[in-house]
Amino acid sequence: MSGGERPGGAVARRRMTSAELSIWRSLVDTTTELRRLLGAQLSQDSNLSPADYQVLLALSEAEGRRMRSSVLAATIDWERSRLSHHLARMERRGLIRRDDCATDNRGAEVFLTDEGTDAFRGATLPHTRAIKRHFADALTSEQFDALDGILRSLRDHLHPEQVEAPKREGRR
Amino acid sequence: MSGGERPGGAVARRRMTSAELSIWRSLVDTTTELRRLLGAQLSQDSNLSPADYQVLLALSEAEGRRMRSSVLAATIDWERSRLSHHLARMERRGLIRRDDCATDNRGAEVFLTDEGTDAFRGATLPHTRAIKRHFADALTSEQFDALDGILRSLRDHLHPEQVEAPKREGRR
Repeated sequence: MSGGERPGGAVARRRMTSAELSIWRSLVDTTTELRRLLGAQLSQDSNLSPADYQVLLALSEAEGRRMRSSVLAATIDWERSRLSHHLARMERRGLIRRDDCATDNRGAEVFLTDEGTDAFRGATLPHTRAIKRHFADALTSEQFDALDGILRSLRDHLHPEQVEAPKREGRR
Repeated sequence: MSGGERPGGAVARRRMTSAELSIWRSLVDTTTELRRLLGAQLSQDSNLSPADYQVLLALSEAEGRRMRSSVLAATIDWERSRLSHHLARMERRGLIRRDDCATDNRGAEVFLTDEGTDAFRGATLPHTRAIKRHFADALTSEQFDALDGILRSLRDHLHPEQVEAPKREGRR
């Protein structure tokens, strides 16, 4: 898996410090708390749960405001069965519409309805304000730059295959 | 709530940038992915779910390896009803034991059993190694320092009442 690591060798010599471990725990706790706070605020300001909002956001950013459910599941990183149950509830509320395509395994085509678009737009301003108030206002621009770099390092480490070469004839 | 913010005034003038918003989304996505990866690894390496591990960790750090369930719920930041269901399952597996105290509203006293202690100890080394491999190994010590400061700023902003004064005669 992780190349160059000799079992019991490098690991045993370069142990993680307890400070690093407690930063990991603080990262998990703090992001969990922020997500819950922002989720509660979202439900209060709109009629949308964080899960609804995540689905509407993905659809609103998709070409033609539609996506195959398999692609939607991958985009928001949910299990397909969880998504399918959730979409059924959102469809009953008129936020999305599904057209079954029996021809392949990529699932129904999911559309954002006008009602869903309105609900998403109505929720976005207060939600963005809440993110600003509880998250962005806490940090300096230097801290934002550092956080950006940290997240990039974590992502590159998680997905080394997706690391962009420093120079590349870019198609997109 | 947030002092000094004039409704529609300061907010409208100092809008959050789209870069800041995308850093927020990346923070949520990256920590979610890391948690899921580490949770899957934990379940594979031990017989514990991340939720089990969280409960065992809190109890193992508590004085006398016991806690009132209300305090445990606050410590790990769970709803009491969710914790109660989860503790029932852990008790059936012998990992914890509960003694009901009918005298007040703070819930049962929850004990870590010897079996729970062994399970926790057995899981900790591989779990810590996985945190090191997937998280700590991705970051330089400068990035750890920066992340520590960022998380401190976020926590202080979320809980201004808990911000420690720069100098204080420390009791603990």
